[in-house]
Amino acid sequence: MLVVMQSHATDEQVRAVCERIAQLGLRAHPIPGAGRTAVGITGNSGAIDTGSLESMPGVAECIPVSKPYKLVSRDVKEENSLVRVPAPAGDVIFGGKDVGIVAGPCAVETREQALTIAERVRAAGARLFRGGAYKPRTSPYSFQGLAEEGLKILAEVRDRFGMGIVTEAVDNESLDLVEKYADVIQIGARNMQNFSLLKRAGRARKPVLLKRGMSATLDEFLMAAEYIVSEGNYNVILCERGVRTFTDHTRNTLDLSVIPAVQRLSHLPIVVDPSHGTGRRNKVLPLSRAAVAAGADGILVEVHHDPDRALSDGPQSILPEEFNVLVTEVRAIAAVLGRTVN
Amino acid sequence: MLVVMQSHATDEQVRAVCERIAQLGLRAHPIPGAGRTAVGITGNSGAIDTGSLESMPGVAECIPVSKPYKLVSRDVKEENSLVRVPAPAGDVIFGGKDVGIVAGPCAVETREQALTIAERVRAAGARLFRGGAYKPRTSPYSFQGLAEEGLKILAEVRDRFGMGIVTEAVDNESLDLVEKYADVIQIGARNMQNFSLLKRAGRARKPVLLKRGMSATLDEFLMAAEYIVSEGNYNVILCERGVRTFTDHTRNTLDLSVIPAVQRLSHLPIVVDPSHGTGRRNKVLPLSRAAVAAGADGILVEVHHDPDRALSDGPQSILPEEFNVLVTEVRAIAAVLGRTVN
Amino acid sequence: MLVVMQSHATDEQVRAVCERIAQLGLRAHPIPGAGRTAVGITGNSGAIDTGSLESMPGVAECIPVSKPYKLVSRDVKEENSLVRVPAPAGDVIFGGKDVGIVAGPCAVETREQALTIAERVRAAGARLFRGGAYKPRTSPYSFQGLAEEGLKILAEVRDRFGMGIVTEAVDNESLDLVEKYADVIQIGARNMQNFSLLKRAGRARKPVLLKRGMSATLDEFLMAAEYIVSEGNYNVILCERGVRTFTDHTRNTLDLSVIPAVQRLSHLPIVVDPSHGTGRRNKVLPLSRAAVAAGADGILVEVHHDPDRALSDGPQSILPEEFNVLVTEVRAIAAVLGRTVN
Amino acid sequence: MLVVMQSHATDEQVRAVCERIAQLGLRAHPIPGAGRTAVGITGNSGAIDTGSLESMPGVAECIPVSKPYKLVSRDVKEENSLVRVPAPAGDVIFGGKDVGIVAGPCAVETREQALTIAERVRAAGARLFRGGAYKPRTSPYSFQGLAEEGLKILAEVRDRFGMGIVTEAVDNESLDLVEKYADVIQIGARNMQNFSLLKRAGRARKPVLLKRGMSATLDEFLMAAEYIVSEGNYNVILCERGVRTFTDHTRNTLDLSVIPAVQRLSHLPIVVDPSHGTGRRNKVLPLSRAAVAAGADGILVEVHHDPDRALSDGPQSILPEEFNVLVTEVRAIAAVLGRTVN
Repeated sequence: MLVVMQSHATDEQVRAVCERIAQLGLRAHPIPGAGRTAVGITGNSGAIDTGSLESMPGVAECIPVSKPYKLVSRDVKEENSLVRVPAPAGDVIFGGKDVGIVAGPCAVETREQALTIAERVRAAGARLFRGGAYKPRTSPYSFQGLAEEGLKILAEVRDRFGMGIVTEAVDNESLDLVEKYADVIQIGARNMQNFSLLKRAGRARKPVLLKRGMSATLDEFLMAAEYIVSEGNYNVILCERGVRTFTDHTRNTLDLSVIPAVQRLSHLPIVVDPSHGTGRRNKVLPLSRAAVAAGADGILVEVHHDPDRALSDGPQSILPEEFNVLVTEVRAIAAVLGRTVN
Repeated sequence: MLVVMQSHATDEQVRAVCERIAQLGLRAHPIPGAGRTAVGITGNSGAIDTGSLESMPGVAECIPVSKPYKLVSRDVKEENSLVRVPAPAGDVIFGGKDVGIVAGPCAVETREQALTIAERVRAAGARLFRGGAYKPRTSPYSFQGLAEEGLKILAEVRDRFGMGIVTEAVDNESLDLVEKYADVIQIGARNMQNFSLLKRAGRARKPVLLKRGMSATLDEFLMAAEYIVSEGNYNVILCERGVRTFTDHTRNTLDLSVIPAVQRLSHLPIVVDPSHGTGRRNKVLPLSRAAVAAGADGILVEVHHDPDRALSDGPQSILPEEFNVLVTEVRAIAAVLGRTVN
Repeated sequence: MLVVMQSHATDEQVRAVCERIAQLGLRAHPIPGAGRTAVGITGNSGAIDTGSLESMPGVAECIPVSKPYKLVSRDVKEENSLVRVPAPAGDVIFGGKDVGIVAGPCAVETREQALTIAERVRAAGARLFRGGAYKPRTSPYSFQGLAEEGLKILAEVRDRFGMGIVTEAVDNESLDLVEKYADVIQIGARNMQNFSLLKRAGRARKPVLLKRGMSATLDEFLMAAEYIVSEGNYNVILCERGVRTFTDHTRNTLDLSVIPAVQRLSHLPIVVDPSHGTGRRNKVLPLSRAAVAAGADGILVEVHHDPDRALSDGPQSILPEEFNVLVTEVRAIAAVLGRTVN
Repeated sequence: MLVVMQSHATDEQVRAVCERIAQLGLRAHPIPGAGRTAVGITGNSGAIDTGSLESMPGVAECIPVSKPYKLVSRDVKEENSLVRVPAPAGDVIFGGKDVGIVAGPCAVETREQALTIAERVRAAGARLFRGGAYKPRTSPYSFQGLAEEGLKILAEVRDRFGMGIVTEAVDNESLDLVEKYADVIQIGARNMQNFSLLKRAGRARKPVLLKRGMSATLDEFLMAAEYIVSEGNYNVILCERGVRTFTDHTRNTLDLSVIPAVQRLSHLPIVVDPSHGTGRRNKVLPLSRAAVAAGADGILVEVHHDPDRALSDGPQSILPEEFNVLVTEVRAIAAVLGRTVN
């Protein structure tokens, strides 16, 4: 259920509507838009008697939301959501004119490795750095990340190069620390339906980058985002990273059609990870160009200066010099769509 | 790496080998077998110098384990693992001659509902009861389970009907409670690669029923079990519950070929959930028969006395009278393979 | 559209209805049933004015068929279709009480090979022999079959061992020859939507065994059968042979849930090919048992006395002695369902 | 096996090598390249004794080809193959600098419909027209195309608008006619492994556009092309049109990663069909841009002036005015890659 306020409704009137909703035992989610404010209602298990709400001052109309997701739906908020990620070198805003670039190694391996790569990707123009301190690995015997030590290295990257930090949380404990050290909390594909973790992320004060699960439908993907938003954190960036199919020429099948599909149904920004999406270094550049051409709001790419010795995902990491080319090409493609990179 | 002890090796010799392994900074996993004991080694990041181990008294040989999973591999333990689930009405052992039946509603909805269904499935012969107190639901607005209240109802089912309890944990907090109230801790398909939860389950003192993820390969499935076992909990029951494919005549595609595939590679028992595996009431019986015919060590089936009013998964729940037929048919199929039901 | 005749309608009345349908520029398909005859109508591009038909003597009612397939639908014919395959050693009827067994090599390689295998599978009880004379191979450089020479060898198998012959046609020319020499015309998975070939098979006078395509939905599968039946050949046996998914422990994923799904929607018999369905010798037995337990009307299995030297599909062919076990086990499973094997 | 000639080898020397190969009972495929000529050998069932070939005048070396496909492999021909499609308005060359555009309705419905659409897409710049005269339809009761009457209408499109014609053949008979009337013979996804049809196309004198099967791996796709080329027709254009997966927000999942994958392994050009690849009008533009950004050699797009009344595939056809935008955007993207459109 969505309460649409009149365009000239006052803040007080919005507040009054929210209070009435709370009195009904429900939860109000005020969603300010360019031309109007809407108030989403969640928490109802059946139909809501809208009579009392519709007659309140400042209310234009009450409209039911038929989709299983509500707050992330474009029905509820017509304009794109802008998700701002702070970075000393210049904030990056996802969902607007800018195409954001997030680059760095799969995992933080050592301080030297992280700083070396950060210097290179920053020089190429990236303002956001990625790198895992907690790595969800298929095998219990694989390198699982440096944990808080890794987060401290990431914080040093921010201090030295002015880059905002994007890094993954794998459970509630790591999320507490990631929220403390990083600028964006990443939820990985394997945890897309770890609803406990999603709810915790929904209570965090930092933006969340939510990766699509390996076999998630679009509805499930948006519903996972709804878990986060319904807890009060509206700063969600969706991320397509390839789905699992029968094909064997790539590690996953990058589903770029999900970009226009998301943009039709939701106001949230969507970025693409061509590194996991293909799993092959030589396919990262063409698919990065394709993602931006399809309308992606950003690119998340793995870069390593010595991929043959990387502790994880070496075969899909590109070299810093390839990243330079990527930025140049992506910028040119973005320009065709009237967009800018950094 | 696996240290195979001689058949006449003493307990003391096994203990000494374990201590030496610990001194090397590694972790020892003694695995007693019918004819010999083997000691699995985990925690090494590279090759192990086996010289000092091979020369110890009682050691037959040191053999490298090539598979990415080790402790769950049949290379390490040739005989089937038997996982005993205690039930006042009679313990159920998975992995042996018995085909175990676990039956009950998708979710515990009310005390009355749980007791009604329990009475019916117990009368039909089931000694294990399933029912979710914590439900991982795709939508944040769907019924999420009764939590501890549901667990208490399940404990009452055990008290009144003598049934062992199988129920799902969705995060560390719920796992603490499930471990306290239930007899088997279920890890759901969506959490198959929630490695933090797997590790916690590996430290639990109760058997774990691990469901295959919706798009998990066999290697990933066994590796998830390895996460649990590597933490010290050897009582893992695998569960096939259908994988996600392009087909639309069932909710998931039940992959029965994974039964002989698991049995070839691993010593762990494997059961089948034809309810989630098909998502259609009218397909539960034929696929239950098929699962047992293919060699499954058990069946996990949703039963509801009033499926049209079930709060979750009504369309795939069978009626108690259908469950009676199921038990009869499954028993006859099991007999063909020289196996028994209850 | 379906014209349902009264139970006491005469042959003449049925004929009159068919003539009227023809006068309307449409095609009539009389479908005799146990208690009544129905007349299917195809060829209409829109709604049919049923007034004139409903008022004809002997007509009970005219009912629209909403499914995209009509003649193969159970709406049109409630009882199972029985498809009789003639064999000197005893005809085999698919769709009734009997579970039919079809066994033989993937390809006819030499006269000696075919006769050797035929003798073994006949001795084990099989009355139908399979073997490809035309092999649709992924590579143009692989063995493509002996063509008519192979068909002649198959005819010799029938003469010497009394077995009915099932063999594949790959185009119109080979279908002409297969129709001449064999007892069942097989259409392979790769040709399931070769509509030109389906129509030609629909004009043949021999039963057709139609394999499900690698990524065919149930609707597409039934619609492919509809192509055959709509041309006048009602003797169609459906065959599940595995679908393509992400899994890698088998060559294909055998979808046994399609058995009850087909039986619900169609009156046609359905058999299972566990050899292509798994691609692994050690999985053929358990999945054959499972198929029969799920309700399959038959099994199509590859047997080779020297699989390591087979020109095609050696790894999935079982040995004659394994086939003996298979027949024994399948017979015991069938008995549980009140069915017989041969 | 591949015989690489010296760069200064004469035509006579190449001819002599081909004759020697024929004498060995094998088939020679001379493949002229920019700097050298190579001669592919097919028809061998085992290793070839290369001694006699290597010692012939003009031969540089004999190299084995390890891939299952040979003639379509980049191992055999390093430079891109250029496939020229003649059109009175200006030939279109696939595989070079140009990005070719093929546009038109799914099916030729009427003369007026075809001419109306042709006029619009020609005005927007397209020089190649697509439209089905033979439609492989899932249901036998759906519109199957106008057959030769449709081909004659297509010929009129060429005469009036100077456009080259691309249209599908579904069996040997229709291929005879398509070869007579059209400029490119299309083989549809459902027939990608109709090997009989592929061989017939390999004996045709017109270029072939081969669509990827719904669940074809890259190897199978290239092997299907190998069937055509091995019969002597080297003018093959590959076409990605989406694969079948679990996703439901598009009709198929367009796999753009296959573009760089094909370009790495094969010298053949590859184009993309975003209409079938997505099945949704609103996704055709973004995915067309993405395809060209990923490096596609062309786009095959369905355009209809009245899609709501189209006899097939209306929901995925774009309007002529949308096609104008598509050409403009695709041209701008192509320019970023140093390529031109028309």
